[in-house]
Amino acid sequence: MTKQELFENIQCKKSFLCIGLDTDVTKIPEHLFNVTEDPIFEFNKAIIDATADLCVAYKPNLAFYESLGSEGLEVLERTVEYIRENYPDQFIIADAKRGDIGNTSALYARTFFGNMDFDAVTVAPYMGEDSVTPFLSYEGKWVTLLALTSNKGALDFQLMRDAEGEFLFEKVLKTSLQWGTDENMMYVVGATKAEMLTDIRAIVPEHFLLVPGIGAQGGSLAEVAKFGLNSSCGLLVNSSRQIIYAASDENYAAAAREEALRVQLEMQELLETAELI
Amino acid sequence: MTKQELFENIQCKKSFLCIGLDTDVTKIPEHLFNVTEDPIFEFNKAIIDATADLCVAYKPNLAFYESLGSEGLEVLERTVEYIRENYPDQFIIADAKRGDIGNTSALYARTFFGNMDFDAVTVAPYMGEDSVTPFLSYEGKWVTLLALTSNKGALDFQLMRDAEGEFLFEKVLKTSLQWGTDENMMYVVGATKAEMLTDIRAIVPEHFLLVPGIGAQGGSLAEVAKFGLNSSCGLLVNSSRQIIYAASDENYAAAAREEALRVQLEMQELLETAELI
Repeated sequence: MTKQELFENIQCKKSFLCIGLDTDVTKIPEHLFNVTEDPIFEFNKAIIDATADLCVAYKPNLAFYESLGSEGLEVLERTVEYIRENYPDQFIIADAKRGDIGNTSALYARTFFGNMDFDAVTVAPYMGEDSVTPFLSYEGKWVTLLALTSNKGALDFQLMRDAEGEFLFEKVLKTSLQWGTDENMMYVVGATKAEMLTDIRAIVPEHFLLVPGIGAQGGSLAEVAKFGLNSSCGLLVNSSRQIIYAASDENYAAAAREEALRVQLEMQELLETAELI
Repeated sequence: MTKQELFENIQCKKSFLCIGLDTDVTKIPEHLFNVTEDPIFEFNKAIIDATADLCVAYKPNLAFYESLGSEGLEVLERTVEYIRENYPDQFIIADAKRGDIGNTSALYARTFFGNMDFDAVTVAPYMGEDSVTPFLSYEGKWVTLLALTSNKGALDFQLMRDAEGEFLFEKVLKTSLQWGTDENMMYVVGATKAEMLTDIRAIVPEHFLLVPGIGAQGGSLAEVAKFGLNSSCGLLVNSSRQIIYAASDENYAAAAREEALRVQLEMQELLETAELI
C-alpha cells in the first residue's frame, strides 16, 4: 500500500484507528470454546467484521499467536488471509519487533511479506542498518521501526543522550532516514510521551507514526493529534485491549464495535478540526 | 541449567562450542528431499547426532523456522524435543531476538520456556527492563541479552557514546546487571570485536558470553579466548554455517562432525592453556 492510499483510506473512513489483534486465549469469551473448535480465529473474525468500517489497520502481535505453538501461527496466517480477502483496504501490521543480522532479517521479511501478506512489520533498531534494510526490498511494504516505545523500560536506553544531548531514539530516527523514505518506513512512538511528538515531528515531518499506548496504557488521543498530525494525517493510533476485550460475554463483538466507534468519532472530530477531511 | 552445570559440561566435553541450527531449506543437501518427507528435521537430527559429543549448546535461529510457516515452527518444536530426549546435557538457545512490553514479553517467555523447553532465549534490549525481566521468572532458564552484535549495523547505535563516553552496549551491560545475575543472564558479544572483550569483562567478569561471528563472519577463536575466558570458562562460541553446511552432499553429517571436531580440538587446547581442564 502506498502512503497516498493509506491517507485516502483514512479520509474515507474518517479514522486513523489501528486495532491490535492481541488475542489472548485466557481473555476471550468463554462461550467460544463451546461453540467452535477454532475459538481464536472465530474471535478475530467477529472482531474484524464488527470493526472493519471504523479502522484503517489491524495489528496482530506475534507473541499471542506464537505462544500457542504452530497451531497459533496457523491461526495468524488464516486471520491475515481473512482480512486480505474481505477487507482489502486494511493495512495489516505484523507486530513482531524483529531484527537480526542481514541474511536472517531477510528470512523474517520473507515470512511476513512473502509467505504472509502483511503490509508492515515492526522492527527493533538495536542491530542497525543491515537488520532493517532487508524488510525494505519488498515493493509496497513497510518497516515500522521502534523509536520511542510506550512502556516504562523505554526510559532505560531510548532516552540515553549522546555528548550533543541527542537521545538514542532521535539518533534512530535520523540515521534510519538514510535507509528508507516516508513511503516505506514509519515509526513507533508511544502515546504516553505525546509532548515529545513536537521534537519527533521536527525530525520526521512527513512520516507516518504508529502510536500505541492509547487506552489501557493511558495516552490521550487529543494530545497525540495535537502534536502528531501532519498534512497526510501521518498517524495510526493503536488500541488493543480496550476495544477487543470491551466485553467478555456473547456481545463481545458489538461491544468492540461500540468502543471502536467511540474512538472513530473522536478521530473524525480531530481530522475535521485539522481540515484533513 | 545452572552456571555450574554448564561449566561442568564444558569441562567434560573439553568444548565451549555452540552450533547454530540455522537450517535453510535452500542450503541443505538436495538428496534429502528425495529420501524423506521431513528434510529439515532429518537434517537437524543428523547434524545433532554427528556433533553432540563435541559441543555444549545448540542455537536454532527462529527466522529459519518461521520462514517455513506453521510447519517450520512444528519442526523446531520437534528438534528441541529431540535434543532434550537424546542429549539432555545440551544447553538450547532460542535465537529469537525478541523483546516487547512486559505482558507481551511474558507470552514470548511462555513460548520458549513453557511450551518449548529451551534453556535460553536471545532478547533485544531496546525496550528496556520490562521487556527483559519476564524471561527471568523461569527457574533455571536464561536470558541471552544482545550487547555488542557481530554485524556491520552494530556500529549504528550500539557504539553511540553518552556524555561520559560510555557506549550504549556498555550501558546495556551495566543497567541489566540490576535485572538478573550471572546465573540467569548472559550476553551476546560479537567475535569481530574481540579486543573489546577486555572492557566488557571489566563490566561483566563472571557472566557467560555468547559469541557469534566465528567462521563465516570472520572472528578469531584464539582472540576471543584470550580476552574472554574467565574462571568458569564464561564463553559459548557459536558457529553455524561453517559447520552445518561443511558439505552439501550425502556426507554432510560427517563433514559437519569433522569441522566441529576441528573447532573442539582448538577449544580443548585453549581450555588447557587457561588451566580450566
